[in-house]
Amino acid sequence: MATIQQLSSGLDTIWVVLTAAMILLMEGGFALLEAGFVRQKNAVSIIMKVFVDIAFGALIFYFIGFGLMYGKDAAGLIGTTGFFMGGDLTHIALNISHETYWLFQCAFVIAVISIVSGAVAERINFRAYILYTIAMTGFIYPIAGHWVWAINGWLGKLGMVDFAGSAVIHGLGGFSALAAAIIIGPRIGKFSPDGTANIVPPSNLPLASVGAFILWFGWFGFNSGSTLSATNTSIGHIAVTTMLAAAAGSATCILFTMMRYRKADPPMVINGALAGLVGITAGCAFVSDVAAILIGAVCGISMVYATEMLEARRIDDPVGAFPVHGISGSIGTLAVGLFAQPDSIREGTAGLFYGGGFSLLGVQALGLVTVCVWGFAITWGCLKLITLIVPLRVTRDEELVGLDVGSHGVPAYSQEDGFLDLQQLKNGK
Amino acid sequence: MATIQQLSSGLDTIWVVLTAAMILLMEGGFALLEAGFVRQKNAVSIIMKVFVDIAFGALIFYFIGFGLMYGKDAAGLIGTTGFFMGGDLTHIALNISHETYWLFQCAFVIAVISIVSGAVAERINFRAYILYTIAMTGFIYPIAGHWVWAINGWLGKLGMVDFAGSAVIHGLGGFSALAAAIIIGPRIGKFSPDGTANIVPPSNLPLASVGAFILWFGWFGFNSGSTLSATNTSIGHIAVTTMLAAAAGSATCILFTMMRYRKADPPMVINGALAGLVGITAGCAFVSDVAAILIGAVCGISMVYATEMLEARRIDDPVGAFPVHGISGSIGTLAVGLFAQPDSIREGTAGLFYGGGFSLLGVQALGLVTVCVWGFAITWGCLKLITLIVPLRVTRDEELVGLDVGSHGVPAYSQEDGFLDLQQLKNGK
Amino acid sequence: MATIQQLSSGLDTIWVVLTAAMILLMEGGFALLEAGFVRQKNAVSIIMKVFVDIAFGALIFYFIGFGLMYGKDAAGLIGTTGFFMGGDLTHIALNISHETYWLFQCAFVIAVISIVSGAVAERINFRAYILYTIAMTGFIYPIAGHWVWAINGWLGKLGMVDFAGSAVIHGLGGFSALAAAIIIGPRIGKFSPDGTANIVPPSNLPLASVGAFILWFGWFGFNSGSTLSATNTSIGHIAVTTMLAAAAGSATCILFTMMRYRKADPPMVINGALAGLVGITAGCAFVSDVAAILIGAVCGISMVYATEMLEARRIDDPVGAFPVHGISGSIGTLAVGLFAQPDSIREGTAGLFYGGGFSLLGVQALGLVTVCVWGFAITWGCLKLITLIVPLRVTRDEELVGLDVGSHGVPAYSQEDGFLDLQQLKNGK
Repeated sequence: MATIQQLSSGLDTIWVVLTAAMILLMEGGFALLEAGFVRQKNAVSIIMKVFVDIAFGALIFYFIGFGLMYGKDAAGLIGTTGFFMGGDLTHIALNISHETYWLFQCAFVIAVISIVSGAVAERINFRAYILYTIAMTGFIYPIAGHWVWAINGWLGKLGMVDFAGSAVIHGLGGFSALAAAIIIGPRIGKFSPDGTANIVPPSNLPLASVGAFILWFGWFGFNSGSTLSATNTSIGHIAVTTMLAAAAGSATCILFTMMRYRKADPPMVINGALAGLVGITAGCAFVSDVAAILIGAVCGISMVYATEMLEARRIDDPVGAFPVHGISGSIGTLAVGLFAQPDSIREGTAGLFYGGGFSLLGVQALGLVTVCVWGFAITWGCLKLITLIVPLRVTRDEELVGLDVGSHGVPAYSQEDGFLDLQQLKNGK
Repeated sequence: MATIQQLSSGLDTIWVVLTAAMILLMEGGFALLEAGFVRQKNAVSIIMKVFVDIAFGALIFYFIGFGLMYGKDAAGLIGTTGFFMGGDLTHIALNISHETYWLFQCAFVIAVISIVSGAVAERINFRAYILYTIAMTGFIYPIAGHWVWAINGWLGKLGMVDFAGSAVIHGLGGFSALAAAIIIGPRIGKFSPDGTANIVPPSNLPLASVGAFILWFGWFGFNSGSTLSATNTSIGHIAVTTMLAAAAGSATCILFTMMRYRKADPPMVINGALAGLVGITAGCAFVSDVAAILIGAVCGISMVYATEMLEARRIDDPVGAFPVHGISGSIGTLAVGLFAQPDSIREGTAGLFYGGGFSLLGVQALGLVTVCVWGFAITWGCLKLITLIVPLRVTRDEELVGLDVGSHGVPAYSQEDGFLDLQQLKNGK
Repeated sequence: MATIQQLSSGLDTIWVVLTAAMILLMEGGFALLEAGFVRQKNAVSIIMKVFVDIAFGALIFYFIGFGLMYGKDAAGLIGTTGFFMGGDLTHIALNISHETYWLFQCAFVIAVISIVSGAVAERINFRAYILYTIAMTGFIYPIAGHWVWAINGWLGKLGMVDFAGSAVIHGLGGFSALAAAIIIGPRIGKFSPDGTANIVPPSNLPLASVGAFILWFGWFGFNSGSTLSATNTSIGHIAVTTMLAAAAGSATCILFTMMRYRKADPPMVINGALAGLVGITAGCAFVSDVAAILIGAVCGISMVYATEMLEARRIDDPVGAFPVHGISGSIGTLAVGLFAQPDSIREGTAGLFYGGGFSLLGVQALGLVTVCVWGFAITWGCLKLITLIVPLRVTRDEELVGLDVGSHGVPAYSQEDGFLDLQQLKNGK
């Protein structure tokens, strides 16, 4: 019969493994969401980027990223052990094995890079994307994550809290996405010469919607699983605030777009749910249910405005990565400073609205700005460097014909009914 | 190290949170199933209704529904505390927190309203649907649920059992769907003037199928999770009866449609699996494996006949909500009275076929009729009331052009390859 | 309050039920993968086969298969009790109920038959497929499985290890698929008279991709759940090797196809991830992380070559069932003999590269050959027998028009916008 100790570590292990698997399934959600939002001719290419995220992301994070993020701390800035899961990791004193912990963190890093994939959709060069993925999962995210989440990371030590990553995952990912969208420039035809934005309907809204439902499902793993222990008494509360914020985000977008555009706007409603989820990610364990609803609602509306603002500034972010992740992640991070319930984070700390004064809000703001600036700046630098190696953008012809056929030699959808003679096709070329 | 008490409540908590997340993923399943079954021009509009279900459903159930359902009982009829999760809830003595319990129940209420969404597909006015969702999740379901599931609810006290909701979820949802389908009337062109039913092929059967697989997956959470405790020794048995009934439902429909139509009929097979799942929901913990197979098989065949009967009566239920949920839910509820194994429900009780006589069957029948009549009648009344506020049905033009473009301004699928000049489009209008 | 014993069996039960549900969701993944890879005109028919797998598979395995596989052993060759879950099963001494154990094993058998469904896609007769499914789930897989996994099975007793089924599931399934593909012959038009292979683009790559992501998710249940106990300390390691091998499989295919075809090839990348997953299935608990990466990489590349070799031999395997499952399953089984870490399997045993000599490798090779030859030969025999009852293949006309309309009377996708008069259609026929 199992001992209590065995039960305890078994329980925590299956909790973390199951929630990690749920987070990894979110890659399927990202793939569907993005493939549904872009044009048909680019649906495969965006999914191939998600494969890059998960394949290269996991390996690079195993080789390098995890060590930089969670290895033995140096000066609060960087980890120095744990590469290939080797070296001294005794400072990570958890009730789960280091490998189990790695798996959960790996699911996180893959989510970060997937955020960026949406902003560069329909025009980035595949090779450039692979290089950027290596940078993001190898050091951009790990280093910022170290500051907030590692023992002795300087932002964490200052008191910044970010339960499951409104700043570390979504703020960082969203601002990196913004930098990438600006550098790579808008898709051909997105803006008229006079600057007005042109539109194209999403190619497959049912797929995009089910992507959102899968992401919503995975988020329960994302937020509740971040306890890393099944006996953490906040798990139920975390799941409830997650649910309520998501519901509020999409309900708000339904009502808001009905008022603003006279029609409930499907892409906005989809992104509204995600905005609510992103917004609650930092505070899910610390804020009340009603605060969660409020955070979700504010994130939903802000996402709509941010989407409009990006277009007004001629920045082309095809799936709304920045409005959803960058803006809602920022709101969520700051919301902890406003709504954190007394003693929910630590003895004696509370958000502004609960009598905690401005100190928590201040450190949240500092941390948020630091992480977002880091993401934006390093992404900018990395992409400039990558330009020296390979073109950042596909050729005009490739963009016009679509990246599916252009970069991957195959369309996303085919109604072909019989076989094509490969020899003849080759001779034809 | 965790204590036994901590392990116990942690174990139960993660069980309920994980199964609740699985049930919530079923919304993705409903969305795909319905989007696949309806015509292309309405695929987004039905998914938007699922967003309404989950977004408004969760919030309204938080504000009102949960209190009416599980709050402190008044006269066996209604709950009176628990609105906004506040007030005295000490009568709910579980090993999980009240919030965790709420999450699981929230997943249930969202499933109920999603059942109705299918029956009114392709013609209901979006605003009317929002209002009806508020009614269903605010009080129609919560009050009926109180009768059966709340401590001191009058049907539960009489001895009615419904493990995971063949009556409370599916019977109620199915008969509400029937009322809604009758009131709103058939889609334009569904019936010829002579009353014969016309057909239209489902727009996307692969999506519908995967919706069914996701629902099947979620059902393991639905039924097994209804134990609300991971140490309940029935969990394995529940999962097995769930699996066998679903398998029997679809296997039966494969064979039955091969005999009846000479071809295994994909939509019937999809709905057959669901019928089996609905049918076992009441008795999953109480009946034997072989009884589960029998229940699944009977539900599968009955679903086919019920589908034909609805058409013969000129009732238009586009995705088969009534045959799947109303009929199979009824069969499953009564089946408990026939097949419940001795002492499986409580000491001294058994179904008719196990020597328990007619008493259990009688109370099951009473409860079933009560719940279904309630659902049908109140839905009828609510929709009549809603008609005083907004039209229940879209205009003829909107129905013909499709609700996607008509109500939401965007098609489900687009092969558009370049951008459209928004200014010109607006001027064109 | 729960006792330690109750917690222990509750914990193990929910672990197995949840992971079994994850494996069963893989059927949704298979359905999408296959529907996406085949031509539009056959997308429903392949999904109907997956319904056959899960519906008939579960029932037949309940009636017969489980008993043959895990019933009381006779001569190391076959089980003799456990039909309908009855008879003496006391030799199965687990911390979970026999039914819970059945559910998990049922999910496995359904996976095996689903492997074969891909190889016979677009041309097999539906009735023949049902008969073959009965054979596979009734005795082909159960008997081979008995040899390796049952207590006293002769291969297991010799020392063969196959943690979650690289040989028993994937080797067997893959070689059975090969036999089926050869017997049934290539699709019309697949090969030119001179033997060169012709191509047809997959009908829906986004669906195929999300199928792969769902399979990837399910694999965490497949491999980690095979511990059958939540307190097994290998769970975290198993999940990590699973993740790394899958990542290596797809990363390798991305790079390899970029070198070989100058374009990262989406179908190959999808199958590369699956190849990595199949390859690690036998050794996930026994090999190191780095070995897992190596195994995944080798499986990815081998899959590409195997795909090309099959085409060169004019064998038509539409979704790559043999390259993915047969080849990678073989590699994975043998890899245990090379990479098993000392004492990871049992005291004193290790793979060749860890000083264990050739003995483990030898028994792995013996077991692999036995299982694969069994699968190939019995499938061959069964299909020849089935031919005596029903034609194995649809008619030429049916194949040309597609199996969806031909065998099931309905297309996978329809853009029909209004209703069709059924009476007129019938009269027209």
